[in-house]
Amino acid sequence: MINTLVEKISTLNAPVVVGLDPMLAYVPEHVQKKAFEEYGETLEGAAEAIWQFNKAIVDATYDLIPAVKPQIAMYEQFGVPGLAAFAKTCEYCKSKGLVVIGDIKRGDIGSTSGAYATGHLGKVTVGNKQYSGFSEDFVTVNPYLGSDGVKPFIDVCKEENKGIFVLVKTSNPSSGEFQDQLVDGTPLYELVARKVNEWGEECMGDVYSNVGCVIGATYPEMGKTLRKLMPKTYILVPGYGAQGGKAEDLVHYFNADGLGAIVNSSRGIIAAYKQDKYAKFGAENFADASRQAVVDMVEDITGAIAKAR
Amino acid sequence: MINTLVEKISTLNAPVVVGLDPMLAYVPEHVQKKAFEEYGETLEGAAEAIWQFNKAIVDATYDLIPAVKPQIAMYEQFGVPGLAAFAKTCEYCKSKGLVVIGDIKRGDIGSTSGAYATGHLGKVTVGNKQYSGFSEDFVTVNPYLGSDGVKPFIDVCKEENKGIFVLVKTSNPSSGEFQDQLVDGTPLYELVARKVNEWGEECMGDVYSNVGCVIGATYPEMGKTLRKLMPKTYILVPGYGAQGGKAEDLVHYFNADGLGAIVNSSRGIIAAYKQDKYAKFGAENFADASRQAVVDMVEDITGAIAKAR
Repeated sequence: MINTLVEKISTLNAPVVVGLDPMLAYVPEHVQKKAFEEYGETLEGAAEAIWQFNKAIVDATYDLIPAVKPQIAMYEQFGVPGLAAFAKTCEYCKSKGLVVIGDIKRGDIGSTSGAYATGHLGKVTVGNKQYSGFSEDFVTVNPYLGSDGVKPFIDVCKEENKGIFVLVKTSNPSSGEFQDQLVDGTPLYELVARKVNEWGEECMGDVYSNVGCVIGATYPEMGKTLRKLMPKTYILVPGYGAQGGKAEDLVHYFNADGLGAIVNSSRGIIAAYKQDKYAKFGAENFADASRQAVVDMVEDITGAIAKAR
Repeated sequence: MINTLVEKISTLNAPVVVGLDPMLAYVPEHVQKKAFEEYGETLEGAAEAIWQFNKAIVDATYDLIPAVKPQIAMYEQFGVPGLAAFAKTCEYCKSKGLVVIGDIKRGDIGSTSGAYATGHLGKVTVGNKQYSGFSEDFVTVNPYLGSDGVKPFIDVCKEENKGIFVLVKTSNPSSGEFQDQLVDGTPLYELVARKVNEWGEECMGDVYSNVGCVIGATYPEMGKTLRKLMPKTYILVPGYGAQGGKAEDLVHYFNADGLGAIVNSSRGIIAAYKQDKYAKFGAENFADASRQAVVDMVEDITGAIAKAR
């Protein structure tokens, strides 16, 4: 699956992913109103609102981007109807040719990680039949439980040609509390990075591994070091834009081939119409604002890369 | 919520929790058959089978136990219908007076952890209305992202009188890979434990905190040390039984008051009928086998505690 992702990024010259993290507060009034008219102010109504919101944004941007990253928490907060909207969003994005990165940050002991891997990347057996519970192409994985919490995901990746991104250094302010702790002079996130390398060797694509990692845009110096430490690992980079990460800080997340990283923006794209910069589109045309924000983001990042070369 | 849990444990003299982790392979043939006759060999059929399986076990054990711990991965593998069975199981268990510990091991950056906390412990706002997406009493939380990934859960715990169990030292074989790494001579799991103490102070019950922790039964020496380090923290203990943890190893997870820990068994209870020891019940009476296994587990653990005093 990493080959597919790399190919799409190269063809579009767009190392970006749109985070489909639809807080209800981002969904324009008219979209909410229509959904509530049909389903009431219910969990189903909220799910319909975020689904229609997602669909419009995907329709307006799918030709510009290689991938989307729906954050499952934003759906899970609306319970079962929310998760149905998550599943529907993943399926729709795949039907539009997008690579779907499920931002699920799961991780547990072996057999339980196996169930998550089956549910999100694989197929579950029911009697004599098999089904995909959810059907992302990649998922994000939390490494705190160690190898036997990660390996079941890798096993499914091998069987199904899927991929994962393992949390190495997250973008949030307190990520250093545990991740930066020094173990014999080496920060914990580097120990995790070394394991990512090991795990990645088991599941290589042509150039990059199907085992990628997550490194926040908000820690560019660490990103630079980690890039060198994991040359074959694709880096999923959250934290650009709204969280404070800047394009010029991100050039070192890329390899000399111009590849090796994919930068996520969620709020900055899906709620673009709320920014002064895109206010001219108006809430009615929120998806057009998102399209323009994608164009600007791609230009910002590819521009910074070109400038740094 | 910790007060309620402690009270139930004391009243029943049963520091145990039944893990409702229904692999389809645990569900007796006749239960599967009935569900598939009604819904086909579909995700809905699988969800119905695990729900009926759960219901029978809960009906046969609820008067003996303070709590259940459904592992969401086992439901999530069956997609949206599986998660509907998870929600239904949580609701049913609450209707039977049980405390529900959602074993979800979520954890993300602040706003996203907030969405998980809302979805599982809190209420989400839709227009002018509020709903519980899922409605556990406690959830398990992964600490890898640090304080700002955990605090949103604590905020919701305060508002809603709920609780969490933070992963400190997990029961799986490779848990030491990162958790045992020494930081200035102190293992990482102890650094997490100190944070659990800090977080716990913000959200105290009468004696114990609403912020508990997870320490595997498979690491009794560490459990002993950690017990002393976190005197007001309730310990959720997975790994008893099938994973190898023994009752005599667990006595040091308890405080002098006989409280402070709750031991989980999943497979050992819900698939008891598959053990030689309970084979006499037969698959038809699987729930009676589970009841007997609960009686035996309670006796085993309270016996070991009494013997150690």
